Amino acid sequence: MTRIVYVNGRYLPYAEAGIHIEDRGFQFGDSVYEVCEIKDGALIDVTRHCARLQRSLGELSIPMPMTEAALRHVMKQVARRNRVHNGLVYLQVTRGQAPRDFLFPATAAEPGLVILARAIDPAKVAAKAGQGIAVRSTPDTRWARCDLKTVMLLPAALAKEKARQSGAQEAWFVDEMGYVTEGASSNAWIVRADGYVLTRPLDHRILGGVTRTTLLDVLKSLQVPVEQRGFTIAEAQSAKEAFVTSASATVMPVVSVDGHAIADGRPGALTVRLRKKFHELAEITPIERFLGPA
Amino acid sequence: MTRIVYVNGRYLPYAEAGIHIEDRGFQFGDSVYEVCEIKDGALIDVTRHCARLQRSLGELSIPMPMTEAALRHVMKQVARRNRVHNGLVYLQVTRGQAPRDFLFPATAAEPGLVILARAIDPAKVAAKAGQGIAVRSTPDTRWARCDLKTVMLLPAALAKEKARQSGAQEAWFVDEMGYVTEGASSNAWIVRADGYVLTRPLDHRILGGVTRTTLLDVLKSLQVPVEQRGFTIAEAQSAKEAFVTSASATVMPVVSVDGHAIADGRPGALTVRLRKKFHELAEITPIERFLGPA
Repeated sequence: MTRIVYVNGRYLPYAEAGIHIEDRGFQFGDSVYEVCEIKDGALIDVTRHCARLQRSLGELSIPMPMTEAALRHVMKQVARRNRVHNGLVYLQVTRGQAPRDFLFPATAAEPGLVILARAIDPAKVAAKAGQGIAVRSTPDTRWARCDLKTVMLLPAALAKEKARQSGAQEAWFVDEMGYVTEGASSNAWIVRADGYVLTRPLDHRILGGVTRTTLLDVLKSLQVPVEQRGFTIAEAQSAKEAFVTSASATVMPVVSVDGHAIADGRPGALTVRLRKKFHELAEITPIERFLGPA
Repeated sequence: MTRIVYVNGRYLPYAEAGIHIEDRGFQFGDSVYEVCEIKDGALIDVTRHCARLQRSLGELSIPMPMTEAALRHVMKQVARRNRVHNGLVYLQVTRGQAPRDFLFPATAAEPGLVILARAIDPAKVAAKAGQGIAVRSTPDTRWARCDLKTVMLLPAALAKEKARQSGAQEAWFVDEMGYVTEGASSNAWIVRADGYVLTRPLDHRILGGVTRTTLLDVLKSLQVPVEQRGFTIAEAQSAKEAFVTSASATVMPVVSVDGHAIADGRPGALTVRLRKKFHELAEITPIERFLGPA
C-alpha cells in the first residue's frame, strides 16, 4: 500500500495527496510520466528513464521540475518511505497550474511533480510469466505522438479494458497497414521460425521503451539476431514465440493472440531465457545504500 | 476571478480546490468536460450541454455523477457563488479515483466532479469579434474519437500554442485528405461565394459543438443554405467569409487563414449577422431567478 506521496515539494500522506483542479495534467493531458521498476531494493535502469523523461519534457517545452540528481533522490526517498523493496516508482510531471487556457501559461508556471511508489509481489508476476498472457488486437486510435510518454492514455485504457472483457491481459494496437504498433502499456515482440526476433522500429507511433532498449542489449549480448520491422497479427499468430516488454513486467510471454495459440500455447524458450537474463544487463541503482542529506 | 469551486460534493475556496493524484482524469485522461456560456445571468444551451455530457459519459461507460437536475443546480450555484454574470461554467467528470491501473476500477469508483465558473468581459470578446481572428492550419494529430469531449487535449494545446507563435488566435486541424476537421477549441465554417455556408458533417473526427447545433438552427431560421461537407484550406482562403463557433465565443469571425486574408480581411456581413442573431435562438436558462434548496 502506498503511504506517502511526493507532491510539489512535500511528502504527503496518501489520502491527502492532491493536485489543483487547474493543474494542466488534469484539464489538458499536458503531462508526462515514467514508471521505473524497483527490484530487490534497487531502481532498474533509472538513467534511461531520466533520459526519456528529459526527452518527453523537451519536446513539449516543459522544464525539468528539478535536477536529475534531485529527482533520483526523491524517487529513492519515496521508495524508502513506502518500504517498497519490489515494485515500482511512478513519476508524473505536468506543465503546472494556471487558469484554464489552451495556450501555455504566459508567466512560466512551476512544473508539477508527483512521485509515488507501490509494492508488487514478485511471486505474482513470476506466476503470471509462468503462464503467459493472452493478447487481443485493436485498431490503433491514438494520437500521432505516442513516442512521447504523455498521460494521453484514454485509448490505451479503453483498449486494455476491452481486451479484459474478452479474457486477454494486454491489447496490441494495429495500424492502418495491418502492422502491430505496440501494446497498450508495453512494446510488442515476436520470435520468427528462423530464430529472428522482430519488433517495430522506433517512430512517432510507438514509445521507445526503456525495457525495449535494454532487451536489445541483452539480445546483442546473446548474439540473437534481431530485425526491427513491423509485423502483422497473422505473423504473430504463426510465430515461434511472442512476448511484451514493460518496466513493471520486464519480459512477459504472450501465449495467444486473438484467441489463436502461439506455437504450443506455452511461454517460449527464448522468452523465458530473456526474462531470466534481463537484470544482468539492466542498470541497478541501490536505494538502501543511498545516503541522502539529513 | 474564481473564488469557489465545486469538487466532489463540496464548495471549496479556489486555492484548496484539489483532486487526488490518483484520479483517473489526472493519470489517464479518463475524463470528459463541458463549457457552458453564461450570458446576462443565464446559462446558454444548458440542455444541449447536458445531453452531450451524457453521450460522452455513456460512450466511455462512466456513470453520471448526479442527476441532470442536480447538475444544473450545482452549475447555477457555482455561477452565483462566484458572481459570474457573463462568462462560463466549466464542468469536468472523471471516472474517479483508484490505484493506478489501465483497467477500469473493479469496484465502481465514484465519478469525480469538478465545476468552476469564471467571468469574461463581454466588451473584450466583442472587441475581438469586431476585429476577427487569424487562423493557422496544422495536421490533425489527434486520436480517433474527437466526437467525445474528453480531456485528451494536449494536441489541441500544442496546436493553439504553435498558432500563437505565428500570430494567430486559433488553429485549424487538417486531415490526411486535406480537409479541415475543426479548430483546436471550435468548429470551423466558411461562406462560399454562392452564399452557401459550409461546415464538416459530424463524424468521429470532430466534436458535435453545441454552438454548432444552435447555429444550424439559426441558419435554418434565416433560410441561409447550408452544405455539411469538408472544405480545404484553399477553399477557405478563397471564401467570402469564414468563422468559428464555440460556447465561449459563440460566432467568431475569421479574417485570415495561414496569413492569407479572407475577402477584404474584415469580418463578413453574414458572420456579423449570425453573431447578433445567435442568442435569439439559443436556450436561455436564468441563474438568478432559480430558487435552490436552502
